[in-house]
Amino acid sequence: MARRVVVIGGGAAGMSAAAKAKRTDPTLEIVVYERSGYVSYGACGFPYAIKGEIARVEDVVVRTPAQFAKQGIQALIRHEVLEIDPVRQTVRVRDLEDGREFVDHWDELVLTTGGQPTRPPLPGLDLPGVFALRSVEEALAIKAWLAEQRPRTGVIIGGGYIGLEMAEALAAHGVALTLVERLPQVLPSFDPDFATQVADELRRQQVDLRVGQPVQGIVGDERVRGVVVDGETIPAEIVILAAGVRPSAALAQAAGIALGPTGAVAVDDRQRTNLPHVWAAGDVAEALHRVTGKPAWIPLGTTANKQGRVAGENLAGGDARFGGIAGTTVVKVFDLEAAISGLSLARAQAEGFNATAVSATAYSRAHYMPGHQPITVSLVFDQTTRRLLGGQLVGREGVAKRIDTVAAALQAGWTVDEFAELDLSYAPPFAPVWDPLLVAANLARR
Amino acid sequence: MARRVVVIGGGAAGMSAAAKAKRTDPTLEIVVYERSGYVSYGACGFPYAIKGEIARVEDVVVRTPAQFAKQGIQALIRHEVLEIDPVRQTVRVRDLEDGREFVDHWDELVLTTGGQPTRPPLPGLDLPGVFALRSVEEALAIKAWLAEQRPRTGVIIGGGYIGLEMAEALAAHGVALTLVERLPQVLPSFDPDFATQVADELRRQQVDLRVGQPVQGIVGDERVRGVVVDGETIPAEIVILAAGVRPSAALAQAAGIALGPTGAVAVDDRQRTNLPHVWAAGDVAEALHRVTGKPAWIPLGTTANKQGRVAGENLAGGDARFGGIAGTTVVKVFDLEAAISGLSLARAQAEGFNATAVSATAYSRAHYMPGHQPITVSLVFDQTTRRLLGGQLVGREGVAKRIDTVAAALQAGWTVDEFAELDLSYAPPFAPVWDPLLVAANLARR
Repeated sequence: MARRVVVIGGGAAGMSAAAKAKRTDPTLEIVVYERSGYVSYGACGFPYAIKGEIARVEDVVVRTPAQFAKQGIQALIRHEVLEIDPVRQTVRVRDLEDGREFVDHWDELVLTTGGQPTRPPLPGLDLPGVFALRSVEEALAIKAWLAEQRPRTGVIIGGGYIGLEMAEALAAHGVALTLVERLPQVLPSFDPDFATQVADELRRQQVDLRVGQPVQGIVGDERVRGVVVDGETIPAEIVILAAGVRPSAALAQAAGIALGPTGAVAVDDRQRTNLPHVWAAGDVAEALHRVTGKPAWIPLGTTANKQGRVAGENLAGGDARFGGIAGTTVVKVFDLEAAISGLSLARAQAEGFNATAVSATAYSRAHYMPGHQPITVSLVFDQTTRRLLGGQLVGREGVAKRIDTVAAALQAGWTVDEFAELDLSYAPPFAPVWDPLLVAANLARR
Repeated sequence: MARRVVVIGGGAAGMSAAAKAKRTDPTLEIVVYERSGYVSYGACGFPYAIKGEIARVEDVVVRTPAQFAKQGIQALIRHEVLEIDPVRQTVRVRDLEDGREFVDHWDELVLTTGGQPTRPPLPGLDLPGVFALRSVEEALAIKAWLAEQRPRTGVIIGGGYIGLEMAEALAAHGVALTLVERLPQVLPSFDPDFATQVADELRRQQVDLRVGQPVQGIVGDERVRGVVVDGETIPAEIVILAAGVRPSAALAQAAGIALGPTGAVAVDDRQRTNLPHVWAAGDVAEALHRVTGKPAWIPLGTTANKQGRVAGENLAGGDARFGGIAGTTVVKVFDLEAAISGLSLARAQAEGFNATAVSATAYSRAHYMPGHQPITVSLVFDQTTRRLLGGQLVGREGVAKRIDTVAAALQAGWTVDEFAELDLSYAPPFAPVWDPLLVAANLARR
């Protein structure tokens, strides 16, 4: 009899695992249970679909259940897994359309339940016009609200990646925005001087930015009317809750699958959990951080795709390993790009490194070329070992792919001196003769 | 008495050496002899100045002799060094303004005489309207010719970087262009399929491209009228000679300074030549190629700046080393970007590697984002050791700085499998969830 694989969650990690498993061993019987109405979508595209840069929200869907069926993968939408029995190797599933429950057997189980928005204990969270942003359905609901209600005012709760991207998206609809972040800065994974540049851009774009101010409540009647911050009610005809995400690990935990120190499912570099034949990947799982050497939880689409593939290959009898993460992330905030890889200075010091940072500003192109833009680069390194620990970049062009060079250096485990020896590309339309990365590295060298 | 440093050639390498030497040891007496009328210019900017993207050719000059004088560096323009006496430690110099010759003494000598255009033995090379492109004066002369003669037809001899950039520059002035390359492809350092994409772009831009066709002569009367190719006279009211460059090493060679296998001055990683107290840097010197482990001659502004700095620091008593090159280069050809780092497949095979290549085309941004462009990536690797040997990219955006990740991987000495583990940045406006580099790397992995 064919071995049966059950995948819980049809996002990027789950569908990558399913597809890779089927390619590796075509005899496998694979079923994916997905609670929402869509599988295989890139949630990272939602802000651009809401903004209107992408015509339809559904365009972010990579493949439909019908397309997976042609590959021999059964993807069942609107099916929620309620319970995992690791001894009997079964799951209990509810069909959300008719409420019917059934039990399915698995030989291999893949946990790709993803993450979910943090819901702070606030009154008014359930008012119409208050949205989070994880599913296609939520993205569609925001788009419909914008089209039908035409909100003139809005509040975004949270200054992380999603909050910042949603600021750009809502501003494009003419919504007068307030962004509230309880921490003293936006983008808490960045050092303060970088967060300040992002904050400046938000203000330049007419976003009323309130940092260091927790939200006290959301008010309204038949729909949202405002958000209470520091005793003041800020008018809001739309509210986006983007106050962080956490791993959707309750199902796993209830089944005795071990979580790691971050609260996500602990996995090894094969994506194995503590239970035999149970794998985890994507936003529900941890990943080894190459710089700290410790498990980290940095939920990102790239990691989800890679881990999913590794889980899929291994459960099908292959031998793949996931090389870990460097914590590379980039975000577009209106006309600004901000990127990080590795550790910020604050984080590096908190991790016990003898860390310091150098910072330089240089141009994205040769100084005599039209359109050149300043890029600020910070390199964090250990003063004892001189090892590079992280890098941050901010600027109006040429930031996103420059951070990849930092990611490579972190993977290589270089010192800042080795980093300074890089033979980076140069031509006047693309870089100055001393690339901003090297200008910073030369400062560290002294 | 203060130690005296003589620098021969005031380009990027020479002025970097002078400036770094003075910063390292302010007691040094430093004089730079430069044959042309300008020091410290970025020749790479000339095509953009001629095109008109940069207002004035002189804008590519970083610093003037007067600015260097304030730093305590004497930069003498229109001074040609005729001879080096390594025993007496002198140079014989001619002041090109008044023809006067004199002898100067040095304690440390820096050879930064750069490179010069290859001049094939062609009739008609000296006709008015025929230009090469190394000095500010030549760039000014081309700009004046375009303004005053308004040529309607032009021929570019040579399909390397300068030839391609000059095609874009002249086309912007409405010159109907023919580009002639004697080799079977443009950009000979790239593999043929990449060169073909560049050739297609040239043709799309109405450039009449003739590859595999040597130039037989240049014809004209009081000015250039045409270029003879394959028995046919192609009309040309302007001709750009861009048939390669070679190191300007004659002065060094005459003084007994050893050249390497490439014909450029042999140096160690401290920029020392075979003679004591004689240093060389920039386009006149070789550099260690990190992939082959052999000396290479790939004249580029970045290398010149870095080597100049190393020479300057060391002659002043410091201890700097130049880490070598990966052969990273990028060129903009009209709306196309082409980049390489390391070895092409042909070159890798010629070097004796058991080399193969994988090639993939993927988008510059998420597939659902407007403006995404295909990028073709080729990765060359050794099938025995799996070591990455080189990478090439071509596309309409996002190419230039992506090649830097390949350069980093080459410096790290990674296998393609290690390269595939990179944690590259992802956000829909900047990259798909699988970056084109990783799509190619995954192919190599199989």
